[in-house]
Amino acid sequence: MAGTNSERTLIAEGPAIILVHPQLGENIGMVARAMANFGLAELRLVNPRDGWPSEKAISAASKADHVIAAATVFPSLEAAIADLEFVYATTARDRYGYKEVRSPVVASDDLRTRFRAGQKTGILFGRERTGLTNEEIALADELVTFPVNPAFASLNLAQAVLLMSYEWMKSGLSSVEVTPFSALPQRPAQKEELQGLFDHVEETLDARGYFRPAEKKPKLVENLRAILTRPSFTGTEIQVLRGVISCLDRFTRESPRGAANPNRTRNRRPKVPRDID
Amino acid sequence: MAGTNSERTLIAEGPAIILVHPQLGENIGMVARAMANFGLAELRLVNPRDGWPSEKAISAASKADHVIAAATVFPSLEAAIADLEFVYATTARDRYGYKEVRSPVVASDDLRTRFRAGQKTGILFGRERTGLTNEEIALADELVTFPVNPAFASLNLAQAVLLMSYEWMKSGLSSVEVTPFSALPQRPAQKEELQGLFDHVEETLDARGYFRPAEKKPKLVENLRAILTRPSFTGTEIQVLRGVISCLDRFTRESPRGAANPNRTRNRRPKVPRDID
Repeated sequence: MAGTNSERTLIAEGPAIILVHPQLGENIGMVARAMANFGLAELRLVNPRDGWPSEKAISAASKADHVIAAATVFPSLEAAIADLEFVYATTARDRYGYKEVRSPVVASDDLRTRFRAGQKTGILFGRERTGLTNEEIALADELVTFPVNPAFASLNLAQAVLLMSYEWMKSGLSSVEVTPFSALPQRPAQKEELQGLFDHVEETLDARGYFRPAEKKPKLVENLRAILTRPSFTGTEIQVLRGVISCLDRFTRESPRGAANPNRTRNRRPKVPRDID
Repeated sequence: MAGTNSERTLIAEGPAIILVHPQLGENIGMVARAMANFGLAELRLVNPRDGWPSEKAISAASKADHVIAAATVFPSLEAAIADLEFVYATTARDRYGYKEVRSPVVASDDLRTRFRAGQKTGILFGRERTGLTNEEIALADELVTFPVNPAFASLNLAQAVLLMSYEWMKSGLSSVEVTPFSALPQRPAQKEELQGLFDHVEETLDARGYFRPAEKKPKLVENLRAILTRPSFTGTEIQVLRGVISCLDRFTRESPRGAANPNRTRNRRPKVPRDID
């Protein structure tokens, strides 16, 4: 999706993403892109199968050049996490072990707290086909797992990184309701404007015999007003609606044939219910 | 990542995912996989550029066959949403319009509420390069946008679908802390076991002259106990630790040379601080 604004500040901070024996360069590139989307920048690779640097990774990174350029390669997982103070391992499988298992939200909130305290942290992701081995899992402090469909739990490597990166970004927001932009502010209509709309609609309909028989008029007016009150129209919307009514009103009154034969309209469109209860 | 269990129930419900003029079959396939990962199943395609069905989509779907097989093609967005009662449009750009803009969490909670009330809903995703047009946006009820890095906001189509699918799944959980599996339960050590560890360690160290000079002993014991108390050891861990101490103790006492010359050990390892305050 479009929307990048290269004049805005590039966010590049937070936990290291550590890929253990990644296989395909394309996946490493997509991981870099997912990290950049959500403000992460430190990529560590443990023994990438097809070597490094990788043209395929650069191409798949879709201009996440700062992540690719800064990526570092390590000969072992132990070396890759040597300077870190807390490490999560991602897993889709129950390991039947004693390490705490966290949801992405809880793990990300914890990583954010540690980040603010100046700690260096990392998140481990295993090889595409088989994930992390138990020996690799043993080097982590805690586990993270995703709330996937149990019958279809296999996440693509870049997608697993995307979800953790996304939760990392969210953990820095003041609330899960925050959006980067919002609807333009609108002034709700004053009751006087709404009353003007009621009068306008009712007068126009009255001129066409809508409120017949006469004893039904109070109920019909009540129904109409209920409908017109419900959407909480803005001032501008009331103006637009009054323009529409004026337009309809002008057209019909200038066309005596239409006014004389209201059934013509009725036949062309489904009959509109007037009395709703 | 591994972990699919095909014997478990396949979750397949919730809002329709509607791709408006998607370009690449690979992306449609990855969308299907992302949907399946998080329990969504209804895929609608508005004028896919390279036609439908698509071999590339099937291949990229990575066995999300039920989503691909059930996908339906529509000639227009209007037709694709005709039977829906509420529609969100995803956008990375501020449209400077009056439609409400929601975060993925808020939109997903709303979709879940509507789902439980029996409403049919959908989420629109635009073409890969340019997203949704303003005319397409106008057909939606509200907007959803992701909290991306402003300087790197361009999400891949399948990744945008993945994030909404993931939030949809999360909206069905009782809490954001829920994980599909957890650490095995462990019994915290009783204080008696911990005291047994203190005694064991202190006796062993005393035999080697650790607590010298004698006036320092109370402080050194206090430090040791603070360290041993902090990790909230489990009963099993206390047993393991006592096994370790017994093993070290046996080795040294059976080797008079080592006992007579404690500096040998000290020279092979970095000097361990004993007095920590």
